[in-house]
Amino acid sequence: MFVLVNLKAYDADPVEVASAAADVDAESDTDVAIAPQTADLAAVADTGAETWAQHTSPVESGSHTGQPLAEGLARNGAVGTLINHSERRLSLADIDGAIAAAERAGLETVVCANNPHQIAAVAALGPDAVAIEPPELIGTGTPVSQADPAIVRDAVEAAESVDPDIDVYCGAGISTAADVEAAADLGADGVLLASGVAKADDPATALQELIQ
Amino acid sequence: MFVLVNLKAYDADPVEVASAAADVDAESDTDVAIAPQTADLAAVADTGAETWAQHTSPVESGSHTGQPLAEGLARNGAVGTLINHSERRLSLADIDGAIAAAERAGLETVVCANNPHQIAAVAALGPDAVAIEPPELIGTGTPVSQADPAIVRDAVEAAESVDPDIDVYCGAGISTAADVEAAADLGADGVLLASGVAKADDPATALQELIQ
Amino acid sequence: MFVLVNLKAYDADPVEVASAAADVDAESDTDVAIAPQTADLAAVADTGAETWAQHTSPVESGSHTGQPLAEGLARNGAVGTLINHSERRLSLADIDGAIAAAERAGLETVVCANNPHQIAAVAALGPDAVAIEPPELIGTGTPVSQADPAIVRDAVEAAESVDPDIDVYCGAGISTAADVEAAADLGADGVLLASGVAKADDPATALQELIQ
Amino acid sequence: MFVLVNLKAYDADPVEVASAAADVDAESDTDVAIAPQTADLAAVADTGAETWAQHTSPVESGSHTGQPLAEGLARNGAVGTLINHSERRLSLADIDGAIAAAERAGLETVVCANNPHQIAAVAALGPDAVAIEPPELIGTGTPVSQADPAIVRDAVEAAESVDPDIDVYCGAGISTAADVEAAADLGADGVLLASGVAKADDPATALQELIQ
Repeated sequence: MFVLVNLKAYDADPVEVASAAADVDAESDTDVAIAPQTADLAAVADTGAETWAQHTSPVESGSHTGQPLAEGLARNGAVGTLINHSERRLSLADIDGAIAAAERAGLETVVCANNPHQIAAVAALGPDAVAIEPPELIGTGTPVSQADPAIVRDAVEAAESVDPDIDVYCGAGISTAADVEAAADLGADGVLLASGVAKADDPATALQELIQ
Repeated sequence: MFVLVNLKAYDADPVEVASAAADVDAESDTDVAIAPQTADLAAVADTGAETWAQHTSPVESGSHTGQPLAEGLARNGAVGTLINHSERRLSLADIDGAIAAAERAGLETVVCANNPHQIAAVAALGPDAVAIEPPELIGTGTPVSQADPAIVRDAVEAAESVDPDIDVYCGAGISTAADVEAAADLGADGVLLASGVAKADDPATALQELIQ
Repeated sequence: MFVLVNLKAYDADPVEVASAAADVDAESDTDVAIAPQTADLAAVADTGAETWAQHTSPVESGSHTGQPLAEGLARNGAVGTLINHSERRLSLADIDGAIAAAERAGLETVVCANNPHQIAAVAALGPDAVAIEPPELIGTGTPVSQADPAIVRDAVEAAESVDPDIDVYCGAGISTAADVEAAADLGADGVLLASGVAKADDPATALQELIQ
Repeated sequence: MFVLVNLKAYDADPVEVASAAADVDAESDTDVAIAPQTADLAAVADTGAETWAQHTSPVESGSHTGQPLAEGLARNGAVGTLINHSERRLSLADIDGAIAAAERAGLETVVCANNPHQIAAVAALGPDAVAIEPPELIGTGTPVSQADPAIVRDAVEAAESVDPDIDVYCGAGISTAADVEAAADLGADGVLLASGVAKADDPATALQELIQ
């Protein structure tokens, strides 16, 4: 399984969470990655944790201000990027452009979407992976795998009908080892999570308990 | 063939163009529709021309200001709507929502996209039709069917691989009967055009010459 | 006083509300105007009611799709337009451009903002009027004049320090004659309201009771 | 004078330019700062150069993905931030929110605008400084101080009529010491520049020649 911890704009110390992630990753079969705020990428990558960006823009190098250039993310240690998270929605053309930008810079791509037919849509754009995150479950503590298992199964089916080799992740409300296992049972290749780790009193323990 | 004339924000008299469209539609095998500015919908529909909206928002009725509600378009005579035109790009979630809103209001849907894999993506969202319009050819006077015939063929193939029954239109630079015929030869079920008619000295004649 | 009824994307019959507004306007000293959805402008203007747009775009005539051209609003009967409503926020440059577009088309302009220093900011752009609408009070039924009278007074002061001749309106939660009177007492030249009339069981009666 | 070098999404090595800026800053009376891409903030700050962000979002810490939190910029070495650059325009409400976010995190604020009345507008929001950058001159190599000196003088006057203590910068096309001096003569307290340094063959020499 792949576990991507999105630190969002939380107050969690990104280096502390990343160090814990690097430890857990080394001690388990699970591949754990951290998606910190863009400004924290280099510090997180320095911990040895697998480091992802939360967003990349579709722009090429040039006269663009305040938008992350994929190459700038990569040179600061990112190896992948989320695209079109429900808190950072892009136009269809920009999703397409962001995938191209990420590939140009050597970043892996996970494109998020809200429902199975949107998952089929983004799978058609050729990312490495897609992630189903029903917006209404984000931050609720109720895992998508329990609240709506059919949506995960349908997303897996929708994505694989477009591209049999694509990875499919799910997210929203995931915070326990049982949630991760339920996601795997529904066919997911990984999970996205955020508050369950980033807002835990002890993120390292929360991560360890997640990966058992 | 279906010919959709997008009046954009041009100065053309929408009622004059619509009247010409109604005449041409009645006299030919071609189905001609007009997409005026939102405020002109009722006046255009009154001519008897098939009337389309240039855009609909994904919102449901409620507390939303300055965004077209699909039901409001329908009650003023629209029978269909463009969605995600390259001059009015939407997020993926909003394209999905706009299709749902249009269907709720009984409007036909044509979702625009820039290239064949975006066409496959939007076809996965279930609209009635998709339209390929390479942005770099819009307004050039060079028809897409001549500048890049492969993109039209690829778009038809991409769309039909997702949904065999979907209609596929093409647009950008189309202004003559030969352009329309070339589009049909490439597998398109219709064309979108704009300046070729809307900016013509005599829109009625331009429409008649187009439909021979 | 000026009373602008924003019909938003509500289900209310725009012609029914507009007819009631025209009657109330004729029978009272209050200037009552209706801002329907864009597609309904012509039908509302036909009632004889003073008709406003909910939004105008900054574009000039040309190759723009799905964005209201100010001239198109005017030719369908609008005499004024809201700009930057909190449900249709614009960039600063687009507020500036929308004011210019509206003036070009002969439309009066009311620019909305959330707090007194934003009111000072938009007043500097030279519209005919500004409107303070604290977003957290919109749709609550608690009138801004009661929930936060200081914000109205401060907005009036902020606007008039920039432009002594500008009109200042307030909105959010206004639904009774007492609310309108309280707004006037705080220095407002008018009010914006929406659900209090548009969602009333009998909009005509609601309007009559408002204007006593 | 204050010279802010916006590295945009250019390919320039941010550490090389920042090191040159730190040297020039130390050897001259001019205050030179560098605004790199967000992911490069920490590396640039490590050079000792005064480090600025190109953009901050208005969000508070919490569930927000892919948007720079002001505190995250500050903890990686930023001491100030551009807001509303013409390549990263914000809604009025978000400009207001971004200023508040920056102040909360201890960042200085420079808000950009296109013309003198927009400058008056943003000055009313209370930033530390404003910057006039006519978009049509950006990247042209023709300095604003030469192409349109009146716009700089009018911007200074507009800003100071709102807030006598505010700093006023100008930008667009500035690349030589003469341009900087001309800006100072027109009343500007500093300049924004980008391609003149970032795209120079030898950014260090370009910076030294600029600051004489």
